[in-house]
Amino acid sequence: MSSSVLLYDTTLRDGAQRQGISFSVADKLRITKLLADFGIDYIEGGWPSSNPKDAEYFRRARELDLGATIVCAFGATRRMNNSADHDAQLIGLLEAQTPVVTIVGKASRLHVEQILRASKQDNLRAIEDSVRLLKREGREVVFDAEHFFDGFAEDGEYALACLQAAESAGADWLVLCDTNGGSLPETIFTVIEAVTRKVKTAIGIHAHNDCELAVANSLAAVRAGARQIQGTINGIGERCGNANLVSLLPNLALKMRQAVRAAEKLQELTQVSRQVSEIANLAPNNFAAYVGHNAFAHKGGLHAAAVQRMTASYEHIDPALVGNGREILVSELAGRGNIRLRAEQLGLDIGEAEQIVTNEIKQAEARGLSLEAADGSFELIVRRQAPNYRPPFSVRDLMVQSLRRTGEHQKSLATAKVQVDGVETLTAAEANGPVAAIDLALRQALNPFYPCIEDIRLSDYKVRILDPEQATAATTRVWIEATVGEQSWCTVGCSENIIEASAEALLASLELFILRLQEKGANYGRINAA
Amino acid sequence: MSSSVLLYDTTLRDGAQRQGISFSVADKLRITKLLADFGIDYIEGGWPSSNPKDAEYFRRARELDLGATIVCAFGATRRMNNSADHDAQLIGLLEAQTPVVTIVGKASRLHVEQILRASKQDNLRAIEDSVRLLKREGREVVFDAEHFFDGFAEDGEYALACLQAAESAGADWLVLCDTNGGSLPETIFTVIEAVTRKVKTAIGIHAHNDCELAVANSLAAVRAGARQIQGTINGIGERCGNANLVSLLPNLALKMRQAVRAAEKLQELTQVSRQVSEIANLAPNNFAAYVGHNAFAHKGGLHAAAVQRMTASYEHIDPALVGNGREILVSELAGRGNIRLRAEQLGLDIGEAEQIVTNEIKQAEARGLSLEAADGSFELIVRRQAPNYRPPFSVRDLMVQSLRRTGEHQKSLATAKVQVDGVETLTAAEANGPVAAIDLALRQALNPFYPCIEDIRLSDYKVRILDPEQATAATTRVWIEATVGEQSWCTVGCSENIIEASAEALLASLELFILRLQEKGANYGRINAA
Repeated sequence: MSSSVLLYDTTLRDGAQRQGISFSVADKLRITKLLADFGIDYIEGGWPSSNPKDAEYFRRARELDLGATIVCAFGATRRMNNSADHDAQLIGLLEAQTPVVTIVGKASRLHVEQILRASKQDNLRAIEDSVRLLKREGREVVFDAEHFFDGFAEDGEYALACLQAAESAGADWLVLCDTNGGSLPETIFTVIEAVTRKVKTAIGIHAHNDCELAVANSLAAVRAGARQIQGTINGIGERCGNANLVSLLPNLALKMRQAVRAAEKLQELTQVSRQVSEIANLAPNNFAAYVGHNAFAHKGGLHAAAVQRMTASYEHIDPALVGNGREILVSELAGRGNIRLRAEQLGLDIGEAEQIVTNEIKQAEARGLSLEAADGSFELIVRRQAPNYRPPFSVRDLMVQSLRRTGEHQKSLATAKVQVDGVETLTAAEANGPVAAIDLALRQALNPFYPCIEDIRLSDYKVRILDPEQATAATTRVWIEATVGEQSWCTVGCSENIIEASAEALLASLELFILRLQEKGANYGRINAA
Repeated sequence: MSSSVLLYDTTLRDGAQRQGISFSVADKLRITKLLADFGIDYIEGGWPSSNPKDAEYFRRARELDLGATIVCAFGATRRMNNSADHDAQLIGLLEAQTPVVTIVGKASRLHVEQILRASKQDNLRAIEDSVRLLKREGREVVFDAEHFFDGFAEDGEYALACLQAAESAGADWLVLCDTNGGSLPETIFTVIEAVTRKVKTAIGIHAHNDCELAVANSLAAVRAGARQIQGTINGIGERCGNANLVSLLPNLALKMRQAVRAAEKLQELTQVSRQVSEIANLAPNNFAAYVGHNAFAHKGGLHAAAVQRMTASYEHIDPALVGNGREILVSELAGRGNIRLRAEQLGLDIGEAEQIVTNEIKQAEARGLSLEAADGSFELIVRRQAPNYRPPFSVRDLMVQSLRRTGEHQKSLATAKVQVDGVETLTAAEANGPVAAIDLALRQALNPFYPCIEDIRLSDYKVRILDPEQATAATTRVWIEATVGEQSWCTVGCSENIIEASAEALLASLELFILRLQEKGANYGRINAA
């Protein structure tokens, strides 16, 4: 397949500019392999002369099998007072030994005169020399024209002269950068149309999301004739981020019928997005276009019923095309059909208990439990209706004291009386907060019977006040995520008393884990005992 | 100023469809007042006949002073087999007594035939009848044409006939909905251009973000002649969300030079966005266009230095225009000038204490206190540095026990040892939750000295987990609003222990109230003693 648009990923360079991101060399290599397997055309790996980590990355990236995907080194045009041959930064770019080198240069007169404090002519010479050196060394050269759109508005003739300088030196790509992210799609479109009448070299677009328009701006560029899109996975990047390749790819492939190489593996899109989030240590965006957990969720009773009647009518694409799934949210609006469907999605047989389960769910929701975001609590309700259900434990008493004496930090002390198989255990534990103390006391009590619960890690905890105008008498909803290895599940609790709500979520979490093991016929020993 | 584009907010209806959102009536009223003060033209309040909460909202919203802003009730066209006069749902819409009613009706032949299982003609009659009834009752009528763009692609003639049915019955607005969010900007543009040649009624756009194009689609609609944009604050909504009014407003006002009423208060944009996040109990998006904490942050050394040299060169707009700030915001308050300004806004003289107050604020913010949304805690820090400051009370010990025995609800018992003017009092109180118990015990102890505190009503209470991945060991921020008559103030507390965080906010709230009375030289008697 011959591509009409090439995707150029800069997650590892511009994406890493996002506050809070710091990729190790191993992270960068994992992302490189992932994106190459996915079929991204170019991967910008970093700025080799900027730090030793990037230099190491380029050395090790050469050893990877990346198929048709090309790793690019990123840098800038030579310094104003250097010759290209003696510019340490350009030499660093060559030493990265990538087949493609991308260099950024100024395309705005204002920036040349006021930031670089150079003459317009000097900047043109720097562009030309730098591109020529890289071409002489056999590289494919991408010229990133920084601040192109702002520069074009200030002084269109000079902005074009910068592109022509790169073109005359043999640049393979002229990438027009909306560096500050302030342009509108119609500006991008008309400027690129004008540019294509003045240069012959293939055009690319590099957009930022400062107006929440980076995806639209990139698509407008393609309509105007651009053949390369620079962006990042999940749109991460400086300030508000870069153009999001995860949205762009299906928009190009499914909506605009453009030929893009990665479209052949479009059904891996959701997985790629989530894996990059994982490596970057970012929580995935549940509301992301195409790949978010909620991108194909249906909440309103009206819609949920209609979705089942005629799937295509309430979805803009089949979620399977991008490797995502349909999510039917259980909620007070949901009918019985949805509950059976949801149970089946979780691999549970609801059997004869449909009416009872439906009633239990309605009661739970009326109490404020909100099961739509708590698969674990939903599953527990279903499992408790199974004919062979036997509660794995019962909590008789649960007490927690929080004490602050002058000048001291508050401490919490919890005691739990728990019955398992007729045996009653009383335990006590202390922690900084009351919920942590309860958690410890419960685990102590359960541990002799179910050592496996030591493996459970509480990985997330959320508190929501349902009727805040009731102030301290308000109902509190607590949401807990628990994790063991790859497995994770969410449970909720609800009460006027935040301690009780937390305990409910915690107990549900522990019980579900034990019931799941029971079903598998597993023993209760630790999975990863030290 | 005559507006060229009107903003129609549906945060309270379509926004509330986002998974995890559940607004109380008090939340909805606060958002309504906030958006009206900001200058949003229309506020869609809810679906009156869908639940009693929404009916109560409309009753109470009528009592608010909303200036030129209009609250709209949302519903649907009549059922196929009803007459409009006897349709319970339409009657519910009229009973909401809003000057504007918005009704959604099908505009896709496929949906009419396969979801409604009705004839094309029946649907047209339902649209016409419903609009006519509402017009007869004197309402401004907004007709939301559901699935319009998909419907137009399937059968353009029928989609237009649906609009014409609404127009012939006197609809004031025809809003074209991209219900599934799958359309591209150029489709939106060309379809609206075609529509405006066939109908005379003003056009609106309702876009969803399933392709990460909702903002661009709304702008394309405006370029094609649409005069109303429906969207939500921060783009919250079902699936991937609705068009984000927070991005649209500055794009319209600053980039497209459109006349929009809310643009007069554009510098409040960041605050409005954050307050709605706070009420919805959502962490604000740091990377949001225009209003994110990072929207004008500069990380790369190159950029940061250049920004200082020539501000405009690396920012697409001046962040002050939208009430945002430059740099990575540790706090809005961080600079000293700002602290003096803020204190003056609150009518406080900071005197010689500027440096001490600045340090106190930095320490508080570093602990996670977030004084931006807690004027009361800020004021308390300032007041504590006044030369004549004397603590009105000091809490020696504070203890709370929460106990659940089998089959009983959890009860909390608090004891407080408080010193006022050298006199120590020990009190105990019981309540459903631990924070309510502490509140009662403290009031009992303080009441003999400051009877006025009986007048304080805690009117709002919010809990946010700052580092949820730390689970039950996470830091908790508690935010409390207290009210006496017309006066209300907000304080925060922060700790790993939710009880301690709540107590901190509560104590700050009580102390501030007493200090304010002291300043006025008022006695501490009750204001509205029964």
